[in-house]
Amino acid sequence: MKIVIDTMGCDNPEEIVRGALQSAKTFPDLRITVVGDEKIINNVISDEKGTGLLDTVFTDEVITNDESPTMAIKSKKNSSMVVSFRLLKEDPDMIGMVTAGSTGAALTGATLLLGRLPGVYRPTLLAQLPNFGGGVTCITDSGANMDCRPEWLYQFAVMGNAYMKAITGKKNPTVSLLSVGTEEHKGNELGKATYPLLKEGNFNFIGNMEARDALNGDYDVIVCDGFDGNVLIKSSEGAAKLIMKLLKNNIMSSFKAKLGYFLFMKKPLMNMKEQMNYNNYAGAAILGVNKCVIKSHGSSTAMSIFCSVEQLIKVHKEKVIDAIKAEFAEK
Amino acid sequence: MKIVIDTMGCDNPEEIVRGALQSAKTFPDLRITVVGDEKIINNVISDEKGTGLLDTVFTDEVITNDESPTMAIKSKKNSSMVVSFRLLKEDPDMIGMVTAGSTGAALTGATLLLGRLPGVYRPTLLAQLPNFGGGVTCITDSGANMDCRPEWLYQFAVMGNAYMKAITGKKNPTVSLLSVGTEEHKGNELGKATYPLLKEGNFNFIGNMEARDALNGDYDVIVCDGFDGNVLIKSSEGAAKLIMKLLKNNIMSSFKAKLGYFLFMKKPLMNMKEQMNYNNYAGAAILGVNKCVIKSHGSSTAMSIFCSVEQLIKVHKEKVIDAIKAEFAEK
Repeated sequence: MKIVIDTMGCDNPEEIVRGALQSAKTFPDLRITVVGDEKIINNVISDEKGTGLLDTVFTDEVITNDESPTMAIKSKKNSSMVVSFRLLKEDPDMIGMVTAGSTGAALTGATLLLGRLPGVYRPTLLAQLPNFGGGVTCITDSGANMDCRPEWLYQFAVMGNAYMKAITGKKNPTVSLLSVGTEEHKGNELGKATYPLLKEGNFNFIGNMEARDALNGDYDVIVCDGFDGNVLIKSSEGAAKLIMKLLKNNIMSSFKAKLGYFLFMKKPLMNMKEQMNYNNYAGAAILGVNKCVIKSHGSSTAMSIFCSVEQLIKVHKEKVIDAIKAEFAEK
Repeated sequence: MKIVIDTMGCDNPEEIVRGALQSAKTFPDLRITVVGDEKIINNVISDEKGTGLLDTVFTDEVITNDESPTMAIKSKKNSSMVVSFRLLKEDPDMIGMVTAGSTGAALTGATLLLGRLPGVYRPTLLAQLPNFGGGVTCITDSGANMDCRPEWLYQFAVMGNAYMKAITGKKNPTVSLLSVGTEEHKGNELGKATYPLLKEGNFNFIGNMEARDALNGDYDVIVCDGFDGNVLIKSSEGAAKLIMKLLKNNIMSSFKAKLGYFLFMKKPLMNMKEQMNYNNYAGAAILGVNKCVIKSHGSSTAMSIFCSVEQLIKVHKEKVIDAIKAEFAEK
């Protein structure tokens, strides 16, 4: 079992290499190839006493967030991302890839270089968020496909269901459709046309849901297009950040509260921050292509890379890609 | 100057009457008519020593949230909402209306009974949220129009701009378009077609914005359709509620933290809760029709009704409806 990790195009390439090393130490059956800058990779390996733990492929060409994804993937043949995709595609033992580089390029690369699974209309970017039930909730498209058709959303539901079965171990994850109310007739044209398709699906569809309940723990898979998924995720993230700031301001505004914080409450509040820290969770999964790619965020730490690797192993062990293939081959 | 308040179809009709009384006491130039159940209204007036402060119209017919808005508005001629709309329409001194009843019925009633302003494609439901800059941010459609055209969004921007000028006193509020990135080319088809229209608009358009920044205080008017506005508002609300719950759980999980909370931190945390309490803010404004209707939420308190009345006065004094009329008459 092998995986490839693209270490470049992100804020802290060193952290990516560190995450790769931690993964290699934790999963002895796994062989990891890191792709990226020779000096950075070798420095981290030597600092962390990791000689021999990783396979390495060196290149100094990088795809940045500012360039056109399609142009970049087509023209930068030696970029760390394109090289990673090539290794993934060509080596039958390679089960997946992690990258913290450009999301657009990762999506384009996955589609152009790995290829769509037969019958899949559009690959999607499934994000997982920690929910307040102590588990994770997956948003079927967090920004890949802006304008969707009902059949695409149906396929996202199928992929989300297979993925969440593997990740959470739940036999029958709940699948619901993002709307403005729970009643069947609520929503926009896209939602109304998608609802009957989901109702017929071979999964546990529980109807429409509202954004305010997204993270309460009742919803395993939330079906939506990439625009709405993005709005849902970023609104939640923005509100969470601002409340933590408001909390800090309120604590720091009075001596008494400051004292209380340092004497009594630092630990529970730090706990809370940790529960919400997305570095403790894997990145978003690009699904619908041959093999799985995890797109970790640009400021990933070693911990988030480790979680993403762990996720790839689950996806492989639970045969998520085969399950998706089978679903669409049947139809 | 007169306004009408529909006191029924909500969780606490008593609170609505109480809010009307507080408004009448605060604004002596304002004459308020409350419409609703005779017993409830008279009881509150007698409890609060408000005899003579309010005009009253009694009816016991109510439109509920469960019925079809169009059917209800057309068939329930004696419902508190339809009676309120009739008073608003027929009395030239009536400047506006507040209701905490069914949103769908309020929108339908406003369109059918008050009528659209000349040139307006679709009335909209402008919500205001408290932001972390200490002000309010308005979302141009919080759920009225699920599937929009670019020209409709352009009109929402015009209405939002006029409204926020009046409400905030800002001469040049910022207007931005909800998207998945700040660059002009980011977004879905609707957004890309709307962008050039907004660029030509007679207001301070500052480009695309992302949902995570919605409440940071930089954005006065956020332009979006009713589906996305609803997702944005409800996600933020949901995340805020869940974090407060997580905070409470973390505090209550240890004796030390509990002690610290009661000794030192109750006040700052209560302050924070108050800053986020939407009862301290007015409801959403239905704009694009002849006269202004404020739709307060179903569980409104006297305070939220008071804020909504205050808003109606501002809308009237700053001639918001005339400004919208003039804008569309010009084109």
